[in-house]
Amino acid sequence: QGWTKVSCPCCVSEDIEPLVLVKLGQKVGPETKRWLIRLIGAPQKDGGAALLAHPGEDATGDIIVLSAPRCTLLRAAEELGLCKLYSDGNMEAFCYEDKDNFKDSADNMQAFLSLAERQFIIKSELDGLRAQKDLRIPGLSDNCTLHHRDNIWQKLESAGVVGDTFPLHNQVKLRHLSQSWYSGNQPTQPLDEINEYFGSSVAFYFSFLDFYTWSLLLPAILGLFITCFSGWSPSSINVIQAVFSMLWSTVVMELWKRRSSTQSYRWGTLHLAERFAEPRPGFQGDIGVNPVTGRVEPLFEWQRDLIIAVVSVPVVRLPIYFIFLHHYATSLNELHTDWDSLFSQTLLYMPSVLHIVYTNMLATAYKTVAQSLTEYENHREESSFQNHLTAKVLVFTFFNYFAVLFHIAFFKQDVPLLRKRLASLLIITQLVNQATEVVIPFIVDRLLSAPHRTESKDDPEEDKFRNQSTLPAYPGLFAEYIELLVQFGYLSLFSCVYPLTAMLLLINNVTEIRSDAYKICKLFRKPFAPPAANMGVWQIAFEVLSFVSVVSNCWLLLLSPRLQGGGMSSTNIVLMAVLVEHLLILVKLLLRVLIPDEPDWIRKKREHIEFKSLRALREQQRLKLVNQSVTKHYKNNSIPVP
Amino acid sequence: QGWTKVSCPCCVSEDIEPLVLVKLGQKVGPETKRWLIRLIGAPQKDGGAALLAHPGEDATGDIIVLSAPRCTLLRAAEELGLCKLYSDGNMEAFCYEDKDNFKDSADNMQAFLSLAERQFIIKSELDGLRAQKDLRIPGLSDNCTLHHRDNIWQKLESAGVVGDTFPLHNQVKLRHLSQSWYSGNQPTQPLDEINEYFGSSVAFYFSFLDFYTWSLLLPAILGLFITCFSGWSPSSINVIQAVFSMLWSTVVMELWKRRSSTQSYRWGTLHLAERFAEPRPGFQGDIGVNPVTGRVEPLFEWQRDLIIAVVSVPVVRLPIYFIFLHHYATSLNELHTDWDSLFSQTLLYMPSVLHIVYTNMLATAYKTVAQSLTEYENHREESSFQNHLTAKVLVFTFFNYFAVLFHIAFFKQDVPLLRKRLASLLIITQLVNQATEVVIPFIVDRLLSAPHRTESKDDPEEDKFRNQSTLPAYPGLFAEYIELLVQFGYLSLFSCVYPLTAMLLLINNVTEIRSDAYKICKLFRKPFAPPAANMGVWQIAFEVLSFVSVVSNCWLLLLSPRLQGGGMSSTNIVLMAVLVEHLLILVKLLLRVLIPDEPDWIRKKREHIEFKSLRALREQQRLKLVNQSVTKHYKNNSIPVP
Repeated sequence: QGWTKVSCPCCVSEDIEPLVLVKLGQKVGPETKRWLIRLIGAPQKDGGAALLAHPGEDATGDIIVLSAPRCTLLRAAEELGLCKLYSDGNMEAFCYEDKDNFKDSADNMQAFLSLAERQFIIKSELDGLRAQKDLRIPGLSDNCTLHHRDNIWQKLESAGVVGDTFPLHNQVKLRHLSQSWYSGNQPTQPLDEINEYFGSSVAFYFSFLDFYTWSLLLPAILGLFITCFSGWSPSSINVIQAVFSMLWSTVVMELWKRRSSTQSYRWGTLHLAERFAEPRPGFQGDIGVNPVTGRVEPLFEWQRDLIIAVVSVPVVRLPIYFIFLHHYATSLNELHTDWDSLFSQTLLYMPSVLHIVYTNMLATAYKTVAQSLTEYENHREESSFQNHLTAKVLVFTFFNYFAVLFHIAFFKQDVPLLRKRLASLLIITQLVNQATEVVIPFIVDRLLSAPHRTESKDDPEEDKFRNQSTLPAYPGLFAEYIELLVQFGYLSLFSCVYPLTAMLLLINNVTEIRSDAYKICKLFRKPFAPPAANMGVWQIAFEVLSFVSVVSNCWLLLLSPRLQGGGMSSTNIVLMAVLVEHLLILVKLLLRVLIPDEPDWIRKKREHIEFKSLRALREQQRLKLVNQSVTKHYKNNSIPVP
Repeated sequence: QGWTKVSCPCCVSEDIEPLVLVKLGQKVGPETKRWLIRLIGAPQKDGGAALLAHPGEDATGDIIVLSAPRCTLLRAAEELGLCKLYSDGNMEAFCYEDKDNFKDSADNMQAFLSLAERQFIIKSELDGLRAQKDLRIPGLSDNCTLHHRDNIWQKLESAGVVGDTFPLHNQVKLRHLSQSWYSGNQPTQPLDEINEYFGSSVAFYFSFLDFYTWSLLLPAILGLFITCFSGWSPSSINVIQAVFSMLWSTVVMELWKRRSSTQSYRWGTLHLAERFAEPRPGFQGDIGVNPVTGRVEPLFEWQRDLIIAVVSVPVVRLPIYFIFLHHYATSLNELHTDWDSLFSQTLLYMPSVLHIVYTNMLATAYKTVAQSLTEYENHREESSFQNHLTAKVLVFTFFNYFAVLFHIAFFKQDVPLLRKRLASLLIITQLVNQATEVVIPFIVDRLLSAPHRTESKDDPEEDKFRNQSTLPAYPGLFAEYIELLVQFGYLSLFSCVYPLTAMLLLINNVTEIRSDAYKICKLFRKPFAPPAANMGVWQIAFEVLSFVSVVSNCWLLLLSPRLQGGGMSSTNIVLMAVLVEHLLILVKLLLRVLIPDEPDWIRKKREHIEFKSLRALREQQRLKLVNQSVTKHYKNNSIPVP
């Protein structure tokens, strides 16, 4: 009864912090639970996870509380390629053998690794468990045997032994975080604290939300100015607005990349070594020797890129988009004309509402397809899997959101309708999103879950942990990012039509920051967050959108009626627009190349890390030779080797 | 009298190979020559180059012959980051301490390093010479003193002490190379042998020429087929031709990248470490500690990118192109109409000839400006300097060549004239190039230089070396590459106008391979060639051109008269063309992303090299700790350290 013992003397500690909760299935007997706790506590050389486990209040309860000893944490930090503060004041890739030169690594694990990192390490140790031989799980029927090199945790989850595995909240830290984050009128977010508590992938989202919101200030002011003091002719306003927003989007994205790389350095994720780590649990392949690392692990010799090129891209993506585009084009077209004539003003927003509901349903269906296709692509790294999955869903979702607007802009060529629809979508989308994301979970939480969760101070610790498991799982950052991407789309693709877009988005985002923060802190279970060096595929999505915006803005300028009425023939106007479009794309490409993606000092730090590992290769050989000669010297002189 | 002595016992060798010739200025006295030989022969810790020097037949002669001892070569090979064959059969980054595990490194320098590499190493050792203290050069006037950390070789060259430094031909190898290269009807080129003799940057040019020529076969056959059996309507032929050439160019460039990375692995240049080496001799800056490598060297804290963005791009590039574009547009326009009416057929080619001569003159003037601007940008690495210089000159040269054709295509919109001009340019350019590149140097060589160069077998070796210095210096690969780029431009930008382009280019290139080979072997001095991992900026130039070709081809299709006569309004036709253009660019981008830039096995080898250096960082710490404990053990037991 109590925490499992550690074999390593340096890891023995009085004060063990509960980090992760494993909720067992309902029919798991005490025999199985004891076996599981032994497995989790066993050293890695015996096929265990080298973690600390606690059976909860009694041996028959359905939870196991996990923590990690110091050595497991340090070794995993090296394996992940985390950078930590070195004794010379730089961030360096952490190295277990050199641990004494890293700040806090000896005595203060809480300061050395962030809470999110410690919790993620436990998850990755569990995910990495593989059976060392064929094995029957005690207390289970015979069809649940583990075969050699099976992934244990996956098998246990599918067999219903393990229900949920999730990181525990630290109530003291959470209270402090929420105070500095969303309960007051803070102008900035405590990003370092978010990184410490929720991990770098979550922190990057909030950092981008923050940066993007501030950068909306400039277009918001310009839009307001244009709307209020429209002394210029409307067509020249359109041109100014369009050219401004096209260049603005590139500059913002380039500056974001610089900020992102700076934060990646601060948070120690500049040098992640996922490529060289074990493959993710879902990775399928024959066991063999990895030619890169020399380790025995599943290998996949098939051409993944070929699958993506031949199966994923043509079979799924393109046809689906074109079908939906067509579908929308016809149905919503009719819908719109009918309804407008019937109810006119009052039901102006109805098509938008219908559209959003419809959209959400389709997106859910598509996600299932995307998930299994990405599984089939069999990615080796978790981040690569996530990026490919995200890319699929995001392109689809994006088309889903924008099909109507594109249809109105490119086929109906009706600018006033576009303006009306854009304004209604802007408002409705924000309202619907805030409702589905925060209000509904809040109400569900208070009405359904809260009554069962009456907490008092005298409750044992375990009951509080069990209460956290009644919260729903955090749905992930996809919905949050796509919301920003759609916003960014409204702004950059159609901004010249509706100059107040930026202002509306700015107001929305100031509240969005707070509602997103409240949501992740209070309404859901704490999510696991892998260390991340940047926004991943979202970065690319925003950049692509910024280039697509040139095409759409030039087209919208072409449609503007004042331009049509000029002295030029319509063919020449089109040619002019094409010329302007190509020039703007050229300027954007130049800006992109000329603004360096990382500040100079970060580049130097990164190169220094790379140089050190290059030098090390040579130094290592020299030291090996020295060792050999020392050993020979010992032998020749019959001195005992220390 | 004879070769200087080496201090290192392992480097003593009977058979010293003359590698590089230094030609001294006319007024250099024997005292200065003796000082120079001593400097070259001195070890690196004393500020010398650690090379072998030979004063030629007598101490007062104006040449010094150089060679390199084994240890200097090996250390430099490590410094450059060359990969060599390891004992396990892989290519690995060479490491001096681990030299015994690399094939041929112990006994056979000729097999271990290629001739080009050995010669380049000597040049880089000379270029790296820096004065360790203020120093008067013996035998020279007082205003030629060296200051602390001055670059010695640069100073000697500007003071006229050193005239030329160039690598010597190896007549046996040269004869063998020329036999397997251009004297017969070889279908392929001996690329590995070229790499061994001339170095990887030259070998990459010939490899690309080879690959590109073979890839012309497909468009040549298609063009021939279209011209001979034009059963289809001309407009559909145009469309087929255009779409084919647009996709062809992307696929060819992607396949080339894969071939290029494979060759880079074979030639051991996959892992060059130029970033971490000493800065190039022309690099200006205050002396300081490099934050990346920790070495004392000139540092440049200014924002280089800022200079490029603010000075180079706008001040030089864009205005010049627009001025020339305008200039051409008007002058050649008039020229053409006048002349065509006067002499019509017979003088059809005159404007083209004039244009080419004019073009060449302008290009020479522009090169001077580009050179000094790139100096001003102050690049740290030689390759970066070369790439920026090349990029500047190449964009200019390209506009210079294509201004007329663009003018005819986009402003005059006269497809028949474009076809006529393209055909004449195609033929004239090839003739002029072959003449200026090979025929004229050949005649000059035979008429002017050869009479002074009567060689007999009994001549002393030094006379033969001296004869090589009468040859002109090799003008570099710029002219060769730009010729290919212009060809590629004719083919991809305007191919739908003149389907026989590919066939003409194919015939030209088969002879081009041989004339280029003859030229570099016989008509010029052997050039120094730095190790290179790819074509550098030329790669990008070809890829950019392949994207620009979509714009020009779609435009030319738009101009085709059959399309104009259809049932659609001209505005709708333009919009159609724009849509097709955008779709094609999308397809090309997708192809580019989906075809991996390196074959799977090369990616694994590269990642293995990266993994090894990452592992080494950790191994090194472990070995250091072992060493420390051993030393302590020695001390505690009073055992003498070996």
